[in-house]
Amino acid sequence: MSEVAQTLEGWYALHDFRSINWSAWGQADAGTRSAAQDELQGFLKQWQSIEDAKTGSTAFYSIIGQKADFVLMHLRETLEELSEIETAFNKTAFAGFTTPAYSYVSVVELSNYMTPPGTDPMQSPDIIARLKPTLPKASHICFYPMNKRRQGNDNWYMLSMEERRTMMRSHGMIGRQYAGKVKQIITGSVGLDDWEWGVTLFADDALQFKKLVYEMRFDEVSARFGDFGDFYVGNLLTEEKLSSLLHI
Amino acid sequence: MSEVAQTLEGWYALHDFRSINWSAWGQADAGTRSAAQDELQGFLKQWQSIEDAKTGSTAFYSIIGQKADFVLMHLRETLEELSEIETAFNKTAFAGFTTPAYSYVSVVELSNYMTPPGTDPMQSPDIIARLKPTLPKASHICFYPMNKRRQGNDNWYMLSMEERRTMMRSHGMIGRQYAGKVKQIITGSVGLDDWEWGVTLFADDALQFKKLVYEMRFDEVSARFGDFGDFYVGNLLTEEKLSSLLHI
Amino acid sequence: MSEVAQTLEGWYALHDFRSINWSAWGQADAGTRSAAQDELQGFLKQWQSIEDAKTGSTAFYSIIGQKADFVLMHLRETLEELSEIETAFNKTAFAGFTTPAYSYVSVVELSNYMTPPGTDPMQSPDIIARLKPTLPKASHICFYPMNKRRQGNDNWYMLSMEERRTMMRSHGMIGRQYAGKVKQIITGSVGLDDWEWGVTLFADDALQFKKLVYEMRFDEVSARFGDFGDFYVGNLLTEEKLSSLLHI
Amino acid sequence: MSEVAQTLEGWYALHDFRSINWSAWGQADAGTRSAAQDELQGFLKQWQSIEDAKTGSTAFYSIIGQKADFVLMHLRETLEELSEIETAFNKTAFAGFTTPAYSYVSVVELSNYMTPPGTDPMQSPDIIARLKPTLPKASHICFYPMNKRRQGNDNWYMLSMEERRTMMRSHGMIGRQYAGKVKQIITGSVGLDDWEWGVTLFADDALQFKKLVYEMRFDEVSARFGDFGDFYVGNLLTEEKLSSLLHI
Amino acid sequence: MSEVAQTLEGWYALHDFRSINWSAWGQADAGTRSAAQDELQGFLKQWQSIEDAKTGSTAFYSIIGQKADFVLMHLRETLEELSEIETAFNKTAFAGFTTPAYSYVSVVELSNYMTPPGTDPMQSPDIIARLKPTLPKASHICFYPMNKRRQGNDNWYMLSMEERRTMMRSHGMIGRQYAGKVKQIITGSVGLDDWEWGVTLFADDALQFKKLVYEMRFDEVSARFGDFGDFYVGNLLTEEKLSSLLHI
Repeated sequence: MSEVAQTLEGWYALHDFRSINWSAWGQADAGTRSAAQDELQGFLKQWQSIEDAKTGSTAFYSIIGQKADFVLMHLRETLEELSEIETAFNKTAFAGFTTPAYSYVSVVELSNYMTPPGTDPMQSPDIIARLKPTLPKASHICFYPMNKRRQGNDNWYMLSMEERRTMMRSHGMIGRQYAGKVKQIITGSVGLDDWEWGVTLFADDALQFKKLVYEMRFDEVSARFGDFGDFYVGNLLTEEKLSSLLHI
Repeated sequence: MSEVAQTLEGWYALHDFRSINWSAWGQADAGTRSAAQDELQGFLKQWQSIEDAKTGSTAFYSIIGQKADFVLMHLRETLEELSEIETAFNKTAFAGFTTPAYSYVSVVELSNYMTPPGTDPMQSPDIIARLKPTLPKASHICFYPMNKRRQGNDNWYMLSMEERRTMMRSHGMIGRQYAGKVKQIITGSVGLDDWEWGVTLFADDALQFKKLVYEMRFDEVSARFGDFGDFYVGNLLTEEKLSSLLHI
Repeated sequence: MSEVAQTLEGWYALHDFRSINWSAWGQADAGTRSAAQDELQGFLKQWQSIEDAKTGSTAFYSIIGQKADFVLMHLRETLEELSEIETAFNKTAFAGFTTPAYSYVSVVELSNYMTPPGTDPMQSPDIIARLKPTLPKASHICFYPMNKRRQGNDNWYMLSMEERRTMMRSHGMIGRQYAGKVKQIITGSVGLDDWEWGVTLFADDALQFKKLVYEMRFDEVSARFGDFGDFYVGNLLTEEKLSSLLHI
Repeated sequence: MSEVAQTLEGWYALHDFRSINWSAWGQADAGTRSAAQDELQGFLKQWQSIEDAKTGSTAFYSIIGQKADFVLMHLRETLEELSEIETAFNKTAFAGFTTPAYSYVSVVELSNYMTPPGTDPMQSPDIIARLKPTLPKASHICFYPMNKRRQGNDNWYMLSMEERRTMMRSHGMIGRQYAGKVKQIITGSVGLDDWEWGVTLFADDALQFKKLVYEMRFDEVSARFGDFGDFYVGNLLTEEKLSSLLHI
Repeated sequence: MSEVAQTLEGWYALHDFRSINWSAWGQADAGTRSAAQDELQGFLKQWQSIEDAKTGSTAFYSIIGQKADFVLMHLRETLEELSEIETAFNKTAFAGFTTPAYSYVSVVELSNYMTPPGTDPMQSPDIIARLKPTLPKASHICFYPMNKRRQGNDNWYMLSMEERRTMMRSHGMIGRQYAGKVKQIITGSVGLDDWEWGVTLFADDALQFKKLVYEMRFDEVSARFGDFGDFYVGNLLTEEKLSSLLHI
């Protein structure tokens, strides 16, 4: 058995992608639409107050293309809280005008490949801040799930710790070149959802998503060992943008 | 032909994952909802009495994310009993507010890789208790189906009994490290459903699902030979939680 | 080109898996349900009379889990007859309460790997009986489709006739150990449906499906060359069980 | 780069598979059904007159099993004509009782592996007749799409022209043994639809589809290089059969 | 890590494939249909004025077969603009008669394999015109997404820059033979959508799509390294053709 890569976990995450039933929304009377938007605003305020209290965080973005119309990404201390948010949202009037498109259950994760031996990462305020982050309000979001491959000679989990560490170091160095341009949040989902990791990127310039992911693809850890799921990309839903989205 | 791994089988299992049609549930009048919940409570009581009589067992958990809203996992002596439960549930008023999400048909299984030769495992009360278990009431459930790979050089079924036994022993030792943290029930489904095994985990700390499954993934039996289906994770539906889930 | 394995063909087969729309069935008035059941009984009687006349055979089983609620497996002399049965059933009132779940078109097949040279199998009454069989009324059914693999070094169709014959002989010997416990009907579907073969098993003890399929999986012909589709398992729908299934 | 195999193209083809909404059809009043059938008959007559004028051809078959209820296969000189047929049919009353099941866009193709150098195949009336064929009125149809594999050592497009020519010659010789029993129309769809080729077979004895496709599977060009999509098989819809199919 | 291929990016692209709900459209009253068409015409005019101002471009084609009825391909400077177009269209009366079929989010891309060192491609008006193109009004469109393979020995991203450059040069030479016959627009979607590239071809003779794609398939870069998604092919929707398409 290969040495297991140690990981640190923080808040649980629920990515909730949904499509709007535009016909039903357009045919609803103005009062119904207005009440639904008020109820939704109430939830957004409640989630903001939790974010202000640093007991969780929520991101709200529209999604481009037919895969979904928007995503709500919630971070919370427990799975029970995520479940309660999901159920409460499902019962809103607005949710009745949407259909589920895709969801992802995971937990914020830092891999420990880089930690110098003998240090306790949980003593570091920086580490804690990265495990329980306030989600950025960048202009754009990008989400995709991924696996490390286990195929013939390209089997990540059969490599030695040393080989994995070397490759992850090179991988991390590409990420660091995008510091200030792309904020990356890795969530682990082994045992929680169908893929092993979820990658959520935030940037003010969406082109940086393409540059970063493309550059990484030439790196051995992605080229030989990365399997990628669907990609979702979207725009920040400010209060004004949300109002415009839902205006009929 | 490789020597066949002997298995012991106990109760049959039906995992029944379902989604709630929230719009219809919210729009139903209070009397309809109340009657549907009463009928559901009646079934839960009946299943509890069967569990008390040790002639079966039922677990009821909510599921996080869009894959499903809840799972009913039933263990019974025969496929006929499982079929009757499924049909009776399908005819309830509450089922009319749900849609099927995923199901799994299997049978509780103990693999015999570890049994010392010359012993009869069916004489062991411990073995019997593991083949006909009362399902835990832990805070969290995790379910996933899996296959052993048959791909090129990674073909589990072409290995010798000795190779398989050595790997399974190492695999079992990881599981044993989680004793007290994660309760694992393996159900076999070769000839019964699309995957070869179903793994159902119970834990009070959901993070232990991630730790256990991730650690196992570095073990050769998973790294080279494990193929995994979708993962479902959820929270125990106590009477109070159920009432809250269905409250409008 | 490898020598082609000769096959003998008998009756055509249609496996018709369907789900019941339980909400609609429950909401229909009693007279509608009763008339639908009478019409269905009429069809069952007609199919029984064809079976009595040995011009075809029909099996009717409930299916466990969400994949389907029941399967009708019909054997007939021609594809036209199967098409007529399908269309007639589609026009019944009962069919209006069901939705298609899965179907399979094939033809009863005996492979000729074992026939001694110089003998004419079509002269054997036993062979004829196996090509145009009356389907068993066993307690349980199991159906799955399968392919022989053509992947890299595991390419069944590139093996010599002698290699294939040796492996099929070993395979057949496993099957023979289950004589009296499991009745197996192989139908070929190359050029007729998406998989190359359909396997339909009948047994009074459903556990024998698992034992048989699992044992075969360690046999080289399955381990290296078998690709399997979805598995369906169910219980015999006697008149009494059918009445109970449809009773509201 | 390997030498490209030259191809000759004739009429464009649209295979349009559809399912009938039996509940809606059965519940429509007799006048609506009768008008819908008259309109459909009008289209069939129009397509027949185009076939008589040798400016196109249309085949109409019922399909067995749940994949579809019927297929309309149209051959025409241009994609615009196919698009017009599709749109006109979509606007009919009868189409309103059907749902799309599968479609395929391709063009009748003859591969040039066998043409002696120095000859111009487009001067041959036989070649022209094969590129712009009148579709047979055989009792049965079989359709499946296929690719030539590009996997590891089994990469058709990396073979030399000579290797491909030798294999295709052997492949063609199998087809020729079925002359008089099976009529085969190959349509190319590279750049037009998801698979590279569509194979449409016509025979009075459906068992010949199985014999032909199975025999070819042992041929290296199929065994190593053939990837196959879904198979559809059906019966000729004569005017009488169509009337019986739609009779309530 | 292999040297990363540099790319130049221009306008963002949204391919929006949709199906028409023919039953609903046919049953709508004439006034509703007429108003919906007028509203659609208004959008088409608006998009044309943006194209005239060279701040974007839109192509509108019908699609043959059941995958979709039409595609709107939009090029714009930002993802926000694409999102606004998508939302505005979703709110139209005409959109209410359609269902989403497939969409693709990408950005016009020129790969830099050919650029002589020391030159700045962004100084070239020709390059700028290719990054922000006015979409052709050719008779036919063909769209397909693709990946470069990362499988065993066929791993594009593990090749050296020199190997990739040599292969891309040969690939480009095939494309150049079709100059004047096929106009090709490559859009990159790494980090934006599920495939790595989208290929949109325009031609007056649809057969050139087949010729070009088939010829390229024998080229090593496609034969060994190309993985292709679904292919969509269609006809230009001139005002007259659109009117005819929607006429009941």
